[in-house]
Amino acid sequence: MPTGRVKVAVLGVGLIGGSIGLAARARAGAEVCGYDTDPAACATALELGAIDRAAPDIATAVAGAQVVFVATPVGALADTVSRALAQVGADCVVSDVGSTKLALEDARRDPRFFGGHPIAGAETTGVAHARENMFEGASWYLTADFPAKDPDLLDRLLGLIRRLGAHPRTVSAAAHDRLMACTSHLPHVFANALAAQALAAYEREGSEPIAGPSLRDAIRVAGANTAVWTDIYLANGPALIAAIDEMMGRLTHARELLAAEDAKALEDWNEHARAAREALLEGEQADPVADA
Amino acid sequence: MPTGRVKVAVLGVGLIGGSIGLAARARAGAEVCGYDTDPAACATALELGAIDRAAPDIATAVAGAQVVFVATPVGALADTVSRALAQVGADCVVSDVGSTKLALEDARRDPRFFGGHPIAGAETTGVAHARENMFEGASWYLTADFPAKDPDLLDRLLGLIRRLGAHPRTVSAAAHDRLMACTSHLPHVFANALAAQALAAYEREGSEPIAGPSLRDAIRVAGANTAVWTDIYLANGPALIAAIDEMMGRLTHARELLAAEDAKALEDWNEHARAAREALLEGEQADPVADA
Repeated sequence: MPTGRVKVAVLGVGLIGGSIGLAARARAGAEVCGYDTDPAACATALELGAIDRAAPDIATAVAGAQVVFVATPVGALADTVSRALAQVGADCVVSDVGSTKLALEDARRDPRFFGGHPIAGAETTGVAHARENMFEGASWYLTADFPAKDPDLLDRLLGLIRRLGAHPRTVSAAAHDRLMACTSHLPHVFANALAAQALAAYEREGSEPIAGPSLRDAIRVAGANTAVWTDIYLANGPALIAAIDEMMGRLTHARELLAAEDAKALEDWNEHARAAREALLEGEQADPVADA
Repeated sequence: MPTGRVKVAVLGVGLIGGSIGLAARARAGAEVCGYDTDPAACATALELGAIDRAAPDIATAVAGAQVVFVATPVGALADTVSRALAQVGADCVVSDVGSTKLALEDARRDPRFFGGHPIAGAETTGVAHARENMFEGASWYLTADFPAKDPDLLDRLLGLIRRLGAHPRTVSAAAHDRLMACTSHLPHVFANALAAQALAAYEREGSEPIAGPSLRDAIRVAGANTAVWTDIYLANGPALIAAIDEMMGRLTHARELLAAEDAKALEDWNEHARAAREALLEGEQADPVADA
C-alpha cells in the first residue's frame, strides 16, 4: 500500500458508513471521502467528522481511494458496488457491509471485491447515531472464495478492519449466508411469529395484553425495519427456509419429549442447550479471528 | 381484616419469598414470619430484614397469619400449600408464586386458596438477591374460578399485592397456563432449540462459534435452571404442546411467503408483527389491572 494516509471512500454515509468513517479517521489516520444520494447525510457526516470531504458522485468519491466501503441500503448494494468497481483501478479493494453475501453475484467474480459484514449496529439508523467505537471487539465477516485471487488487497482490507477495532473472520459467501440464516434471520422470523401468537393468545383469553420481561426480550426484534428486512428475507430465502425446517424438526423433538412426560430426557435436552449457549458465548469472548 | 399490622407468613424464603417479605414489611407495614427447609435461608432473611421471625415448622409459621405466601420450588408447591391449608382457619388466605397454576388441583377446590404468579424475578436465586422493589409495576396473576367463593379473602390478597407495588390480574388457572405457555415457556423452548442449532451450524461450517448481539439476545434464556424448568415443562405440557403446534403453523406460513418470494406479503407479515409488538408493549405501560 502506498505510504502516507490511507485513502478510504465510503459510499452511503448512514449509521454504519458514518461509523466506518469516524473509526477510520480516528483509529487508522485515514483520509475519508464520503458520498451519499442524500446530500444532508454528507453534510451531517462532515459536521460530525465522519468524513474529510463530501463527493458529488461515486466517481469523484472513489478517485484515488485505496479502500472503498459500500454501505448503502441492501437494495442499492449490488448496483453501487458494480459502479465503484467500474471506476477504480487494479490497486483498490472494494467491500460492502450488507447482511447477505451470495446476492452480490457479479462482484464476487472480481478479484478486487471482498464481501463484508460487520456484526454490529443498533436499532437506530442514520449518520447522527454513528460511533467511532461501533466495531470495537465486533466480528466482521469477509467473504470470497479462498484462497483470495489478490491476497495483497485482502491483507490491506484485513489490516484496516483490525484498526477499526473489529475481528475479521473469513468465510465463503454461502457459509456466511447459512450462518446468518440461523443466528440472525431465523430469530427475527420467530420474534415476528411470537408477537402475533402472543397477541392472539391474549385476545382469545379476553385478557389485556402485557409483555413481561421474558416476552419483551423474545419479541424485541419483531417487526424490525420492514424495508431492510424484506430485502434480507428475499436475498437469503433458500438458507432461511432450510434453517426454519431444521428448527421445526427441533421443535417437533421437544414436543415429543413433552408428550412423553420424560423428565430425564427433558433434563438432558435442557443441559445440552445450556452447554451450547456457553460454547457460543465463550467463542465471543475469545479472540474470534480466523483468517484464511 | 383485623386492625393492626397485617400478619403474613412466607413459606420458602428464596429470591421471591424474600422479596415478598421485604416489600410486605416496608410497604404494607406487615409482620412477616418465615419458614424454610434450609435454616440458613431463614438466618439470611432475618439478617436482611426480609422477615421479623423465623419459624421452625409450617404450623408455627402460619399460626395467626392472615395471608400465607408459598414460595418454595415448583416441585414442593402442592405439598406445602396443602399443609398450610390444613393448619390455618377460615379467615386466612393462602396463595403461591408458581409459574403454572392448573397443577395445584387440590388446593384450587379450597375457597381460601388463590393461585398466584408475579411476573418478576431475575436470573439469580436465593434470598441474598431479594429486593424490596422486586414487584414494582409488575403484573401479578391471581387465579381461581371467578367469581371467587370468598370475595373478602380475595380482596385482602388483592390489596396486599397492590401494596407490594404490583398490578394484580385475575384469570382462570387454565387461561393463565395457556398464556404462560405462549409468552414464557415457548420462548424458552425456542431458545434451547436455537442454541443447539446455532452451535451445530458453526460446527458444520468449520467456523468458530460466536454470538453476535442478535443471537446473544435470542439464546439468553437457553438452558435456564434445569430443575426449575423441567418441573415447568412437565407441569404445563399440554398447553406448551399446543403453543408449539401453533408456532409451527406460523413458521410454515412464513416459509411459504419466503418460498414464493412474495415481497408484498413479507412486508405485510412484518408490519403485522410490528403492530402486535407495539400492542403488547403498550399494554405493559398502561395500568394492566383487570380485576374480576
